[in-house]
Amino acid sequence: MSFVHDTLAQRVILGSGLAAQAVADEVTRLGRRRVMVVAGGSEAGLADQIAEGLVSAGLQVTLRWGEVRQHVPLELARRAQAAAARADIDVIVSVGGGSTTGLAKAIAMEVDAPILAVPTTYAGSEATTMWGLTDGGTKTTGDDPRVLPATVIYDAELTTSLPVDLTVASGLNGLAHCVDSLWAPRANPINAAMALEGARALATGLPAVVADPGDLEGRERCLYGAYLAALSFASAGSGMHHKICHVLGGTYDLPHAQTHAVVLPYVLAHNAWAVPAEAGRLALALGAAPGRVEEAPAAAAIEVLEQLRVSLGAPRDLAGTGLAESALAEAAVACLAVIPASNPAPVTEASVSALLRAAWAGDTPTLIRS
Amino acid sequence: MSFVHDTLAQRVILGSGLAAQAVADEVTRLGRRRVMVVAGGSEAGLADQIAEGLVSAGLQVTLRWGEVRQHVPLELARRAQAAAARADIDVIVSVGGGSTTGLAKAIAMEVDAPILAVPTTYAGSEATTMWGLTDGGTKTTGDDPRVLPATVIYDAELTTSLPVDLTVASGLNGLAHCVDSLWAPRANPINAAMALEGARALATGLPAVVADPGDLEGRERCLYGAYLAALSFASAGSGMHHKICHVLGGTYDLPHAQTHAVVLPYVLAHNAWAVPAEAGRLALALGAAPGRVEEAPAAAAIEVLEQLRVSLGAPRDLAGTGLAESALAEAAVACLAVIPASNPAPVTEASVSALLRAAWAGDTPTLIRS
Repeated sequence: MSFVHDTLAQRVILGSGLAAQAVADEVTRLGRRRVMVVAGGSEAGLADQIAEGLVSAGLQVTLRWGEVRQHVPLELARRAQAAAARADIDVIVSVGGGSTTGLAKAIAMEVDAPILAVPTTYAGSEATTMWGLTDGGTKTTGDDPRVLPATVIYDAELTTSLPVDLTVASGLNGLAHCVDSLWAPRANPINAAMALEGARALATGLPAVVADPGDLEGRERCLYGAYLAALSFASAGSGMHHKICHVLGGTYDLPHAQTHAVVLPYVLAHNAWAVPAEAGRLALALGAAPGRVEEAPAAAAIEVLEQLRVSLGAPRDLAGTGLAESALAEAAVACLAVIPASNPAPVTEASVSALLRAAWAGDTPTLIRS
Repeated sequence: MSFVHDTLAQRVILGSGLAAQAVADEVTRLGRRRVMVVAGGSEAGLADQIAEGLVSAGLQVTLRWGEVRQHVPLELARRAQAAAARADIDVIVSVGGGSTTGLAKAIAMEVDAPILAVPTTYAGSEATTMWGLTDGGTKTTGDDPRVLPATVIYDAELTTSLPVDLTVASGLNGLAHCVDSLWAPRANPINAAMALEGARALATGLPAVVADPGDLEGRERCLYGAYLAALSFASAGSGMHHKICHVLGGTYDLPHAQTHAVVLPYVLAHNAWAVPAEAGRLALALGAAPGRVEEAPAAAAIEVLEQLRVSLGAPRDLAGTGLAESALAEAAVACLAVIPASNPAPVTEASVSALLRAAWAGDTPTLIRS
């Protein structure tokens, strides 16, 4: 046991129906007066509620920004930064998904103002110091402590309208963050503890939301799990799963969320036997029967993840996402080159080929011994 | 699920034999030049090694402070603060246990300098924003973000000389922090995840150190567990266990560490049945057989904690710590008044009396139904 772990300062508030009050409380606690609210068109009604909460607390919205676009175009960021500077705002309230949080981060890089993030999806950007900007099709990303929101306000009521299929895809992406954190380059026991707690929350939250999209407790668990997923992933880095999905998504233009959902069980099948202790803890976190975990921890983890995927109706094969069988050999070579040295199971062309072929065909995942 | 959680910014470095190099690396990373080293007499040799590490990195010790006393007397703090200000130091390296970290905190309250803490015990002060000063027998405590060490460097080699009985007492105190965090006033899922991870580490680390006091991996686990114990306790606050121990220690002058070791299993016996999910997770963290946890989570937690206590040779009855049987009724009333409303099991005079009587006699802990 030897590690370095950086814990980032952040307040997290989680519940249902508390966003407007919590935003006003946090602006007051931080002693800020000049509020910029960033919220796209679909969050306009919500931004109104938050503005009303501020007024009730004797505060007001100094600047409201309604233009939000995917991938944070540089030109948009420049305009928002200039407006924020002109209005001399001293706190940024972002209400929305990853694109909205991303724009708030771009503003915070130029204007000395903390961000209060009110996420409405499971994107997870609010838990990290990472930012991204695009200019003419080129994406620049970076890491800056100033862009980490001072407070994140998770209000499950804001997520009840998130469609179930998107919830499942996004939630399984979060679960993949958790699982990959167990063996990513900066994996450490603290990241693992957070990741396993995130997996536990998603494994109960996602089925609850599938059963009833309005289930607030299920939505709370999903938000909580997605938060821990982002936290552990940002700290631990990309492991085998994300490297494979990056290759598949980038080279073959496969859909992001489905690819994650399909690949995860096979990555677990590839690695679980090499980390039986972690696999056993993951299996318990995902709800496996303790007796089965005691008997065969790696197999138990693979089985319970597969049960979860089936119960959520998630996609099960890469063939269905549009990957040609003829691409598998080339893809295995490309993946092999980028899988981190930290991977617990030996990675060979044969083992990656077996993984990809099983994922392509949608075989029932079983231990892949490299 | 509804909570507010404040995560504090801190870097943690853990390993064996890395202290001198890590201190030099961190001073360099933080861009500091004028180092104050705070270390009492028994840590003088270690402070020499750290000073050598700084010189090798092209740095030097601007001020070395060797006077350290328990409970941080105000007069001592004032002298150390004045010396630090005169020497214009810009970083404080504390090497030692709770008293040393405490003095470094007192200095950081007056001098704008981050603390790099190198703990040599399991006191845990390095993970919290809490400070304490004593003046003429009166202790003042407080909470100040400036006193939280920027970096904690846990080097297991520095703890191999810690006597086994002190390791066990201090480790069980840490375990009590973990267990009490499950139901303390500010208990939340994040604190619980950290507390359970701390319990897991202590439950394997302590027996390893008892078997071989020089076992570095066991020592690493104890340091890691004690860190998470302090972190979760500082965040969650005092629960039933610590309130009872505070009353017993304060009113009857019982020895701190032994009282904690004796009382913990009975507090768990009092509360476990009311939080079966948490009790089951605690039981698994402490190494209970998963099948037994599935069958009876609360009983499994109580049993496995008792096995751990027996295996560590920890004290088992309050009678042996010097508490008179005649004091039990009065003690129960005093405890009843201070146990937090957050306690998961109803607290009655009868239930607290049963708890104290069982702890006094050293009965095998079994579920106490209030």
